[in-house]
Amino acid sequence: MSEKTDFADRMGSIQPFHVMDLLARARQLEAEGKDIVHMEIGEPDFPTPDPVRRAALKVLESDPVHYTPALGLPQLREAISGFYQQRYGLDIPASRIVVTPGASGALLLVVNLLINPGDGVLMSDPGYPCNRNFVSLACGKSVMIPVNEDTQYQVTENLVRQHWNNSSRAVLLASPANPTGSLVDYEELKKIHTYVKHNQGHLIVDEIYHGLVYSDHPESALSIDDSVFVINSFSKYFGMTGWRLGWIVAPEWAVEGLDRLAQNLYLAAPTLAQHAALRAFSPENLEILEQRRQTFAQRRDFLVPALRSLGFELPFEPEGAFYVYANCEKFSNDSFALCNALLSEAGVAVTPGLDFGDHLASKHLRFAYTADIERLEEGIRRMQKFLAS
Amino acid sequence: MSEKTDFADRMGSIQPFHVMDLLARARQLEAEGKDIVHMEIGEPDFPTPDPVRRAALKVLESDPVHYTPALGLPQLREAISGFYQQRYGLDIPASRIVVTPGASGALLLVVNLLINPGDGVLMSDPGYPCNRNFVSLACGKSVMIPVNEDTQYQVTENLVRQHWNNSSRAVLLASPANPTGSLVDYEELKKIHTYVKHNQGHLIVDEIYHGLVYSDHPESALSIDDSVFVINSFSKYFGMTGWRLGWIVAPEWAVEGLDRLAQNLYLAAPTLAQHAALRAFSPENLEILEQRRQTFAQRRDFLVPALRSLGFELPFEPEGAFYVYANCEKFSNDSFALCNALLSEAGVAVTPGLDFGDHLASKHLRFAYTADIERLEEGIRRMQKFLAS
Repeated sequence: MSEKTDFADRMGSIQPFHVMDLLARARQLEAEGKDIVHMEIGEPDFPTPDPVRRAALKVLESDPVHYTPALGLPQLREAISGFYQQRYGLDIPASRIVVTPGASGALLLVVNLLINPGDGVLMSDPGYPCNRNFVSLACGKSVMIPVNEDTQYQVTENLVRQHWNNSSRAVLLASPANPTGSLVDYEELKKIHTYVKHNQGHLIVDEIYHGLVYSDHPESALSIDDSVFVINSFSKYFGMTGWRLGWIVAPEWAVEGLDRLAQNLYLAAPTLAQHAALRAFSPENLEILEQRRQTFAQRRDFLVPALRSLGFELPFEPEGAFYVYANCEKFSNDSFALCNALLSEAGVAVTPGLDFGDHLASKHLRFAYTADIERLEEGIRRMQKFLAS
Repeated sequence: MSEKTDFADRMGSIQPFHVMDLLARARQLEAEGKDIVHMEIGEPDFPTPDPVRRAALKVLESDPVHYTPALGLPQLREAISGFYQQRYGLDIPASRIVVTPGASGALLLVVNLLINPGDGVLMSDPGYPCNRNFVSLACGKSVMIPVNEDTQYQVTENLVRQHWNNSSRAVLLASPANPTGSLVDYEELKKIHTYVKHNQGHLIVDEIYHGLVYSDHPESALSIDDSVFVINSFSKYFGMTGWRLGWIVAPEWAVEGLDRLAQNLYLAAPTLAQHAALRAFSPENLEILEQRRQTFAQRRDFLVPALRSLGFELPFEPEGAFYVYANCEKFSNDSFALCNALLSEAGVAVTPGLDFGDHLASKHLRFAYTADIERLEEGIRRMQKFLAS
C-alpha cells in the first residue's frame, strides 16, 4: 500500500513566485563569483532604522517576551491611531485598529471574516499575487479584472460595474500598487466605494506602500468612510520587513470577529516587533524614513527615463512603492525568457510579469529600485549592452 | 442603504476563548486591588531564557532584519535537524524541516496543504480548540472524537476506526495534549499510523509540549515513519511564546507545497526570532530548560494530589504539558459557572472545560501550573475555603 502524496486541490492554483527561482539562481551565480545587479527584490535595501532597533534592545533587556493580546499591544494600537491623526488628520480610534503579523496576517483575517465559499472578490490583474490565494484559501473566488495603461493599471468604478455580479462580495485594491507603482485615483475610489456599499459589498484597500508616494502624501481610503477596510504594514515604508508586523483598520462592527480569528489563527503578532514599532512613529524615526523616501524618489527619477531610453515603454510615471512596471515588447514577447537571459547574460535580476497575473504578463517586467543608484546605473549599462547585441 | 455588517458563515462556528473574558475580568479585579491566583494561563511564567535573548541582542546590532527564505533560515533548519539527532537519535534531514510563525503557522500550512473542502479531519474532544478552526477555515470537516478517561482522553486506533469514513483524510493528535497533559501511547500511535496510511490518509502529530514530559523523554512520532507530519514550537518548552516561532517536520514530497503556501500566506517567520532560536539548542540553554522542566514537574507533583484532596477527580497522573484536567462534578455540573465563582469569590482564575470542546466540558476545569508553587499553594487554600463554604 503506497503512501498518499498528493496535495489538496487548491494547491493547483497556487503558483510559486518565479522570482524566487530567479533569486536562487542569482545567489548561485554570485557564489560562483559573478556580480549580479539586483532589481528583483521586493523589500527596501535599508536596514531597520536605528531608533526601532534601539527600542527592541531595550525591551529585550527587561521584557519576558510573552504573548500580547490578540488585537495587539494597547499602546501600539494607540500609536497607530495617533499616526492617522498626525499624518492624515483622521480621527481613527485605537479600538478600530488590529495589529497583525504583517499585512499577510491582515489579509488572512479580513478575507476569512468576510468571504463565504463561492463569494467573488474583485481585484486587478496585474496585482500582488498572494491576494488571490488568500481568497482561494477561504474557498472564495478571485475575479481578476484585466487592467491596462489607460487606467494606470488600476480598477475603476466602470470596471467594477462590469465585473460585479450576484456572488460578488468585495473589491480588493492596492494604492500604490505592486507591481505598477500607481495610485487609485481618489475620486474614482469614492465612486467604487459608493457602488460597492450600495451593492452590500466591502471595499478593502491595501495601503502598505502608502508612505512611499513621491508627490504629496495621498489621502487614505479611510477618509472616505468608516466602512472601508484598510490594510497597512511596518514592512515597506517603516523598513521592518523581517519583523512581520502590520495592521488593519476595520469598521467597529468587525473588530470582535477579527479578534476571534486572530486568537485562533496566530494568537498574537510578535511581541518584540510590537514594542519596537512604538518607536517607529517617533519624530527621529520619521525623519529617517523621510530621507529614505527622498532616496527612493531619486532612484525612480533616474530609473524611469533610463528605462525609457533603452526602449522599454512606460506609459506613465509611477507615483509610489519602489517598482517600475515596464513593457518589454520591443525586445521580447516572452518576458520570462527575457528575465532569464538578462540574468545569465547581463547579470541583471528582474521579476517577470508572470508573477503578477496573466493579462499583461508576457510583455512586462517589474524593476524594483531597492538598490542604490550606482547599482541601478550599472544595471542600465549592462542592459544597454545586452539589448544592443 | 445600510452597510453590510455580517460575518462570513464560518464565523458562526469560531468560538472566542472563554478564558480570555475571564482573564480580562481577572485583570480588572487586580486593577481594583484584588489579588488573583492565575491558574488559567497557557504560557510558561518564565521569561525567554538569557542565552536566547543575548543572541537576539547580538543580531540586532548587525543584522538588517530583512525577510528570510520562506522555509526558514538554513542554519536554523540544520539546528532543528541536529536537535532530533541529539535528543531522539533520529536522522531528520534539514530539508524536511519548515520553520513557521508559531505552531499556528504550522497548522495553517499543513491543513491547507492536505485538506480539500469536505474532507474529514479526526481529532479528540477535549482538545486544543484552534485545531478545528484551522480545518473549518480550509472548508474541511472536523470530526470530533469524544474521548474519556479510560484512554487518558486520547484517541485510539479503535476510536479512529469507528469514526473513519470515505471522506476522512487525516487524524490530528497532540502528545502531550492540551488540556489533559496526557501522552498518546506509542504502540497505539503506531497502530493509528498504520490504519491511517492504509486508508490513504495522513497522520499529523502536535508535539509542542513534547519537551515538557516528566517521566523519560518520550519517542517522537517521527520515529514511526517518514510519512508523519509533526508540528512543534519554540513557545512552550523553549519559553519563547512572544517570538512566534515553530516548525513542521514533513515528508520530503510535501516540502515544495509547504514552501509555496508559506510564500503566499506569511512570506517568512520573524527574522530575529529565527536567529535567536539558533541559541535555543545550546548546552547552556538546554540546561536552563531542564531546570524549568524539573520545576514544572515539582509543581505538578504538588498540584495533582492537592486537587484530589479537595475533591476534584483526576483519573490519572498527567505526564506532560503544564495542565491538569480535573473533573469538578462533585462541586458543580456547570464548570463555567464554577469558574466564574472561583474568580469572583475565591480570587482563583482557571479555564472552563468549554474552551476545549463539548463532550466533557461542563464537568471539567483546566488548571495550569504556570505559576510558582507558593501561588499554587495559595490557590489551593483559597479553593479549599471556597468549596467548603
